[in-house]
Amino acid sequence: MKKAQYAQRGPVPQDVIEAVEFEAPPLNAGQVLIEVLASPINPSDVLTLTGEYGLLPPLPAVGGNEGVGRIAAVGPVVSHPQVGQTVLLPIQGGSWATHMVASAKGLVPLPDGADPKQLAMITINPPTALLMLSEFVDLQPGDWVIQNAANSAVGSYLIQLAKLRGLRTINVVRRESAVEAVRAAGAEVVLVDGDDLAKRVREVTQKAPIRLGIDAVGGVATQHLAQSLGEGGVLVNYGAMSGEACSISPASFVFRDVTLRGFWLSRWFQAATPQRRAEVFGEIGRLVASGQLTARVQATYGLDQIKQAVAAAAAGERDGKILILPNGPV
Amino acid sequence: MKKAQYAQRGPVPQDVIEAVEFEAPPLNAGQVLIEVLASPINPSDVLTLTGEYGLLPPLPAVGGNEGVGRIAAVGPVVSHPQVGQTVLLPIQGGSWATHMVASAKGLVPLPDGADPKQLAMITINPPTALLMLSEFVDLQPGDWVIQNAANSAVGSYLIQLAKLRGLRTINVVRRESAVEAVRAAGAEVVLVDGDDLAKRVREVTQKAPIRLGIDAVGGVATQHLAQSLGEGGVLVNYGAMSGEACSISPASFVFRDVTLRGFWLSRWFQAATPQRRAEVFGEIGRLVASGQLTARVQATYGLDQIKQAVAAAAAGERDGKILILPNGPV
Repeated sequence: MKKAQYAQRGPVPQDVIEAVEFEAPPLNAGQVLIEVLASPINPSDVLTLTGEYGLLPPLPAVGGNEGVGRIAAVGPVVSHPQVGQTVLLPIQGGSWATHMVASAKGLVPLPDGADPKQLAMITINPPTALLMLSEFVDLQPGDWVIQNAANSAVGSYLIQLAKLRGLRTINVVRRESAVEAVRAAGAEVVLVDGDDLAKRVREVTQKAPIRLGIDAVGGVATQHLAQSLGEGGVLVNYGAMSGEACSISPASFVFRDVTLRGFWLSRWFQAATPQRRAEVFGEIGRLVASGQLTARVQATYGLDQIKQAVAAAAAGERDGKILILPNGPV
Repeated sequence: MKKAQYAQRGPVPQDVIEAVEFEAPPLNAGQVLIEVLASPINPSDVLTLTGEYGLLPPLPAVGGNEGVGRIAAVGPVVSHPQVGQTVLLPIQGGSWATHMVASAKGLVPLPDGADPKQLAMITINPPTALLMLSEFVDLQPGDWVIQNAANSAVGSYLIQLAKLRGLRTINVVRRESAVEAVRAAGAEVVLVDGDDLAKRVREVTQKAPIRLGIDAVGGVATQHLAQSLGEGGVLVNYGAMSGEACSISPASFVFRDVTLRGFWLSRWFQAATPQRRAEVFGEIGRLVASGQLTARVQATYGLDQIKQAVAAAAAGERDGKILILPNGPV
């Protein structure tokens, strides 16, 4: 058994992590051993390695926070899930490993037949996209939403979820070469960011006011979205892909009554009722299993290639998610 | 009769404005002629001259947006106010003039005996301070509020209004030389801005969470306030004295759930009910007339010195408001 472990954090994330052997621990009552099929590298995982994330596990730690696996063994007094059942990995950290030990209680069983690579990505990015569309502004079918980093996984889920709700999206990317992938994800409007973004947006919407903007870039890109919003619009930030602080002119706040908020899935998890969580993940699970909600995978790596995988995930220009397949192809 | 007029806008505000003679216009039914006693130069007036404000009057225009005057003559069918009555100037623009013609209806009479210089400043800055304290966060006595530009007129009103409500303020200034004036305005805690502001703030509050921050500076100063707020805090921007866009790290929004909003008195005026407006100005009028709410005046100028007055108001380092006294000392 192997796991991708780090004993310290540092600015170059691939330098601090490495695959190490470990012994299968004995299973206590109520525990199961899960064979990990697939686990993605999210931006939050990279920030956890560099120390820039809002929650940091004690060291040493094993990387990874979501994925899909199969029950390999069950401990005493476990009646279900049974050996062979596909399950969502619990959010306890350490998913970049060939095996994880977890409590059987609360494990979410997944349908057979769905693509494990797609199922591996449903815990973090799809609810982020779904909740940013629903928790800040009461949008109606026909309304416009603008987002940047539209070629990210969250961006791609957001395009698909917005379309299912009858919303129209304006999708902003930072480079011309990303436009095609965003169109392929179903976007009708894709614009390359620039100082005249708001002007081009108004031409597209024919001046219909945009009430929700979604920013994962920061820097002047935040300002470009703020300028594109209608009076009283809400701009939600969930990331800083530019590495820069969000920049917004006071004129947007003061004269145009724009509000800037942040979204963090971890906070939502803590605050949401079990019923609301079941509702959100039920909807996402159905859409992913039926193939209505998908994300591009750029490349898959084995656990021994963890350094290359993390380096690829941390690189700026990607057109899909990086996945770890700790036990080989799925 | 004279008025301070500008026929174009430009980056150097004192270059575009000048005092010009005008003829007393005939008074129509319902109109009065007001002799202007005192009118301040607010930051919004300077931004109107440079073209950076959110509402710009058609050109040519007369500067100034608030002040106090005395009824000099009444037109047909005007029963009150009577000649000699002190009134608040109506918010119609053009208060930097020896005389204004206005509709008698809706003019707010002011008590005799109060300092006209203090009354001249009550329409814009005190309600800005009062409303930022009341419209965003439901503060309770004992709560902390943090503001920068604490040596501004709004900052000084805010210190006094907060104290009257039992709130505690942390007052941030950009230079050591401004500290004493802020203490003189009644502030107990005055800090000079810097990258370690949040750390020093936590020492002062003994880690009590701050739920409201008030920013008139922009740039990294916005970030320093955001870092000083508690989780879920609201940061309200109402100006950009640094001339820079607000900068805030996504970590403040995302991990600490800070919200950034803007406040613009013009919007509040449009949206507020007549009852709410009367309530706000009633409270402010009483406090100013009784001397409980005052602002420092740095210097007064005649109308012929309008260029020097605007230059002084536009200069960065001031310790009080610049007032125009169009008809000489009051």
